[in-house]
Amino acid sequence: MMRVGLLVSGSGTNLQAILEAAAQGDLNPALPALVISNRPDAPALERARRAGIETLVVDHRPFLRRADFDRALTRALRQHQIDLVALAGFMRIVGPELLSAFPDRVVNIHPSLLPSFPGLHAQRQALLYGAKISGCTVHFVDDGIDSGPIIAQAAVEVQPHDDEAALSARILAQEHLLYPRVLRALAEGRVHRDGRRAWIRP
Amino acid sequence: MMRVGLLVSGSGTNLQAILEAAAQGDLNPALPALVISNRPDAPALERARRAGIETLVVDHRPFLRRADFDRALTRALRQHQIDLVALAGFMRIVGPELLSAFPDRVVNIHPSLLPSFPGLHAQRQALLYGAKISGCTVHFVDDGIDSGPIIAQAAVEVQPHDDEAALSARILAQEHLLYPRVLRALAEGRVHRDGRRAWIRP
Repeated sequence: MMRVGLLVSGSGTNLQAILEAAAQGDLNPALPALVISNRPDAPALERARRAGIETLVVDHRPFLRRADFDRALTRALRQHQIDLVALAGFMRIVGPELLSAFPDRVVNIHPSLLPSFPGLHAQRQALLYGAKISGCTVHFVDDGIDSGPIIAQAAVEVQPHDDEAALSARILAQEHLLYPRVLRALAEGRVHRDGRRAWIRP
Repeated sequence: MMRVGLLVSGSGTNLQAILEAAAQGDLNPALPALVISNRPDAPALERARRAGIETLVVDHRPFLRRADFDRALTRALRQHQIDLVALAGFMRIVGPELLSAFPDRVVNIHPSLLPSFPGLHAQRQALLYGAKISGCTVHFVDDGIDSGPIIAQAAVEVQPHDDEAALSARILAQEHLLYPRVLRALAEGRVHRDGRRAWIRP
């Protein structure tokens, strides 16, 4: 089994999709083993508890330096023997200590077809730009903003009358399919990376 | 009928797709009326002649200033009573005089899902970035590089073993479907633009 640590900040709908995939055996050999939230009130924590997954709050606010928060996260992940770190709506930057502790083992999902629309409010960015196709991207995390090597993407049509909520919902449905699939592939050793080019082998 | 002037520089496979759509009546009420090449040896010219479309060479090299080349293009388009200008592999920047002479009437096709991978060698950029989904975009031309309002896009999967030629061919097949469809919609007055957001009405 590959023990997955999930970092969350908010409602955790991607977390929910991952937990449901795990409950149905579709995530094997990836095993959600720990959920860490930087916010004590994140609804994602309750989802994890309901699924019987260990939870931890590492509140970023008491840390004066970002590196200390990063160190605390890294220590917690190590103490729980985590093999793979998956960001699921985690609203803090992951720092160099965590990244070097988990080389090629920190992934994120982003609601656009990167490199289009990185950063916050990707769906709103796509609407304001007038994109006709958007989607979602699972990528390795590097030291930039949504700039790491892409593992998988799924496309979604933007409809003429979409508002941010409608487009976000359509993309989210694809996120919920894509992220569990990639976590499983990572755990099965089917993700191959050569520089910036990463691929899921069948 | 809406008379379309097509600007080309090279082989003109998009031009060919447009001419074939016109021959089959699928471009109506858009009518390819003039093909202008900035290169006297562009194979696109021969395609146009074979289809019985008037051709013109406006070689950019004798013009010392870009604005003079732009003025010559604008004059030629006006003399031929062109209503709509479509770039089809035109490798020169379209200048402000032409753009202001044809407001919302200059369009281009680009081989990526803009805003990803603008500029030259978009397919190569997509491969080097490791994108899993790319495609093509038809957009209004503005004074930036591939930055104008998007009218339509089509998505294409990038395959693990794609080289630039393979990906380009897969995108080109979608370009050949998308561009005639957009030209027809423009001629039928079905393209509606509100700021950056443009849409084809059914």
